[in-house]
Amino acid sequence: MNKLAVVAFGGNALLRSGQKGTIDEQERNVYESCKALVNLIRQGKDLVIAHGNGPQVGNVLLQHEAGSKTFGIPKMPMDVCVAETQGSIGYLIEQQMRNVLREEGIEKNIITLITQVVVDKNDEAFLKPTKPVGPYYSEAEAYSMEQERGWQFKKDPAGRGWRRVVASPKPIEVLNKIIVEALARAGNIVVTVGGGGIPVYFQENGNLMGIDAVIDKDLASAKLAEFIKADEFYILTDVPNVFINFNTHNQEKLEHVTIDKITQYLEEGQFTEGSMAPKIRAGIAFARQGGSTTITETTLLGTNHIGTIIHQ
Amino acid sequence: MNKLAVVAFGGNALLRSGQKGTIDEQERNVYESCKALVNLIRQGKDLVIAHGNGPQVGNVLLQHEAGSKTFGIPKMPMDVCVAETQGSIGYLIEQQMRNVLREEGIEKNIITLITQVVVDKNDEAFLKPTKPVGPYYSEAEAYSMEQERGWQFKKDPAGRGWRRVVASPKPIEVLNKIIVEALARAGNIVVTVGGGGIPVYFQENGNLMGIDAVIDKDLASAKLAEFIKADEFYILTDVPNVFINFNTHNQEKLEHVTIDKITQYLEEGQFTEGSMAPKIRAGIAFARQGGSTTITETTLLGTNHIGTIIHQ
Repeated sequence: MNKLAVVAFGGNALLRSGQKGTIDEQERNVYESCKALVNLIRQGKDLVIAHGNGPQVGNVLLQHEAGSKTFGIPKMPMDVCVAETQGSIGYLIEQQMRNVLREEGIEKNIITLITQVVVDKNDEAFLKPTKPVGPYYSEAEAYSMEQERGWQFKKDPAGRGWRRVVASPKPIEVLNKIIVEALARAGNIVVTVGGGGIPVYFQENGNLMGIDAVIDKDLASAKLAEFIKADEFYILTDVPNVFINFNTHNQEKLEHVTIDKITQYLEEGQFTEGSMAPKIRAGIAFARQGGSTTITETTLLGTNHIGTIIHQ
Repeated sequence: MNKLAVVAFGGNALLRSGQKGTIDEQERNVYESCKALVNLIRQGKDLVIAHGNGPQVGNVLLQHEAGSKTFGIPKMPMDVCVAETQGSIGYLIEQQMRNVLREEGIEKNIITLITQVVVDKNDEAFLKPTKPVGPYYSEAEAYSMEQERGWQFKKDPAGRGWRRVVASPKPIEVLNKIIVEALARAGNIVVTVGGGGIPVYFQENGNLMGIDAVIDKDLASAKLAEFIKADEFYILTDVPNVFINFNTHNQEKLEHVTIDKITQYLEEGQFTEGSMAPKIRAGIAFARQGGSTTITETTLLGTNHIGTIIHQ
């Protein structure tokens, strides 16, 4: 049986810093990111692609805000906004991957799914939301939305105004995981859990319902990788390796590292919260199931470079 | 082998006239539309769901326009906007269908695909675009965009300004049709070709590329139904039947009607262009392959009402 790999594209696979996010830029970035996966495919690995959506869902929220003020179009909640980005980003990935496969002479199909990820409504993350989303508001606007909609706001440290914060609850279930596994094992490349998945929960009556939240895309991808019994998990980002003592005279690049060792580094506070730390946690969570997690730069994937590989 | 049915939800399955399009309204409409499909499922039919996106993609275009003016966010082209609506509408359908299935005690999975539909860049529709999309502009704005981007504009007959028009080319290929057929035949409900599919074409180098166009959702659904060898095709809309001599003293409701007969009515000009006529053409195109096309009102689907059934 082929090895099964889950690859999580970071934000920079789609949008590089300094770019405005035009369609031409995004298409080119996605094309290059897809090109970097060719080596994995040539090694005979079955492939599932997950991806972030930070800048894109940020734009969608702003577009809904502007559309509401300018044209009176009802704003959609977070879950629907995430679904929109799964559509647009998933489309770009599927299209560029089809082009890459054709150019490489590889006969392989690719299929993009809209994916709901279930969270627990009682997840403690909902008690203190931390993830800033959407536009900046004046204090008065923020206050009135707090009263009207029960939203929570935080003052931007850089003084740009007030911004809504939502919870980042843990992913507990990925809908259609069984189909994802079957499609990938049959040789199809599957694009799924975009943006960490559309956040939903089960209501008391048993019905599914969207919820205002942002699920960490690396945690959601790790969970999917675990569910579908993947052999390998790749977290692709904008640095070639994980480092300890970063930016000091005894900075050290990590290549092969055990779960115990990197857990120790994590507890020492070696990794930045909101950036590398959540990737390490997702990497550890998957490696605990027996597979290996590689953290590296997207474009280095097809080269001889050894990224940071977490294993048991 | 179970019968395979393709059901195309019209705009009113998602948004009723007079509604503003809030998330609560759309969820309720979609829930009711999904409920109407239960009878087909209980009859043991395998199911593929297609859907329109008229009001939704219209809103996305306006939101992109407003987001560009207010926040400087790059506007995305039509293909990406259609992809966004496949994500949001597909999500709503999958979620509400899951809730309906649970309530009805039916064990069935549902899976939503992002779907590209290939058109011919030399389709004659590109010579004279007719489909109005996006916001109204002043004559000066329209003129400058015509010069800069090569877009085409038409003056609104009701005097609301100038509006961009895009082509509505014929669908010639549905990507992933083989997977759609396999998934549906295995008992999964599949949501696909939303909004007529994301319009793409093959460039001279063989690579796929998005294109500014709107594909008629009934034609795209009919094409898919033909490709996957469906037995039945349902076009769900907001009238219980197709009528001839509509709104005259000898108005007549059509129930069972042959391809020859309805083609004759079509040629007589019995059906409104831009409304019922394209549905009839899509219905005829599918029925020519040997199946039957039913045109009726969404909520009448589960009842004893006989819609208009086109057959050979």
